[in-house]
Amino acid sequence: MAVHVVLFQPEIPANTGNIARTCLATNVHLHLIRPLGFSTDDKMLRRAGLDYWHDVKIHYYDSLDELYSAYNEAEFYYIENFGTKYYSDFDFSDQENDLFFVFGRETNGIPKELLVGKEEQCLRIQMTDKVRSLNLSNTAAIIIYDVMKQQGFPGLE
Amino acid sequence: MAVHVVLFQPEIPANTGNIARTCLATNVHLHLIRPLGFSTDDKMLRRAGLDYWHDVKIHYYDSLDELYSAYNEAEFYYIENFGTKYYSDFDFSDQENDLFFVFGRETNGIPKELLVGKEEQCLRIQMTDKVRSLNLSNTAAIIIYDVMKQQGFPGLE
Repeated sequence: MAVHVVLFQPEIPANTGNIARTCLATNVHLHLIRPLGFSTDDKMLRRAGLDYWHDVKIHYYDSLDELYSAYNEAEFYYIENFGTKYYSDFDFSDQENDLFFVFGRETNGIPKELLVGKEEQCLRIQMTDKVRSLNLSNTAAIIIYDVMKQQGFPGLE
Repeated sequence: MAVHVVLFQPEIPANTGNIARTCLATNVHLHLIRPLGFSTDDKMLRRAGLDYWHDVKIHYYDSLDELYSAYNEAEFYYIENFGTKYYSDFDFSDQENDLFFVFGRETNGIPKELLVGKEEQCLRIQMTDKVRSLNLSNTAAIIIYDVMKQQGFPGLE
């Protein structure tokens, strides 16, 4: 089954462009939850996504609930600094279910009220206390490639 | 021993800023080979590196040879699309030697003449043929966190 990345109300177009490029490089589907902090005509987005933008499979939604309704059999994971488990604690090698990885806004992540009851699916990335977070597109690249490695890089060469 | 990232003549300040932030998050040393395509006062660099820029351990050199002279006992790896091995083929769990990962320019990588005789240390990242490359800072994040995971995230929490 497929791997999916969800960006919840992304704010910085270059990040979304870079993530779109990583998705295209790994056959990962990209889902964007509106409102976006930019127009998809934005030149920074297209520059970061290079000339690939039109090839990426992007789906748009007005809420996370709308996305959940479309994929009610899937497994969802949320990348958040307040997650109690590390990303490396999870086994993503199972390819039976669709896997969704949800990334929050650059400034303030995913609203906590949307994560009530989903604490066990929140995961964080190990880092020193010298930074508050990594760049959003870097965070997505780390997770996507960890999943790809665990799954044996299906369809990639 | 330590993990090091080397950027060979980086061109885009936001990439170097994001990589500096990832280095600070992982206690990785950052080495920059001049000339740089930007001033280290550049506002895009500082924005990407946030307010962390001054905390990153950055070392500057005028050539790769100058760097080799300073670390002649270290292991060097080069991230290049024409590498014949994948990054996932390597075991980086050994922490006895200093490990250096060299990343080339955004536009054209590391000059081939600098890699003659080092082909066995060139490594590539799996990707579809739909893209030519990943964003440089994303590439660095993937490699750094794969090494950290293999080493058990030393000093990170």
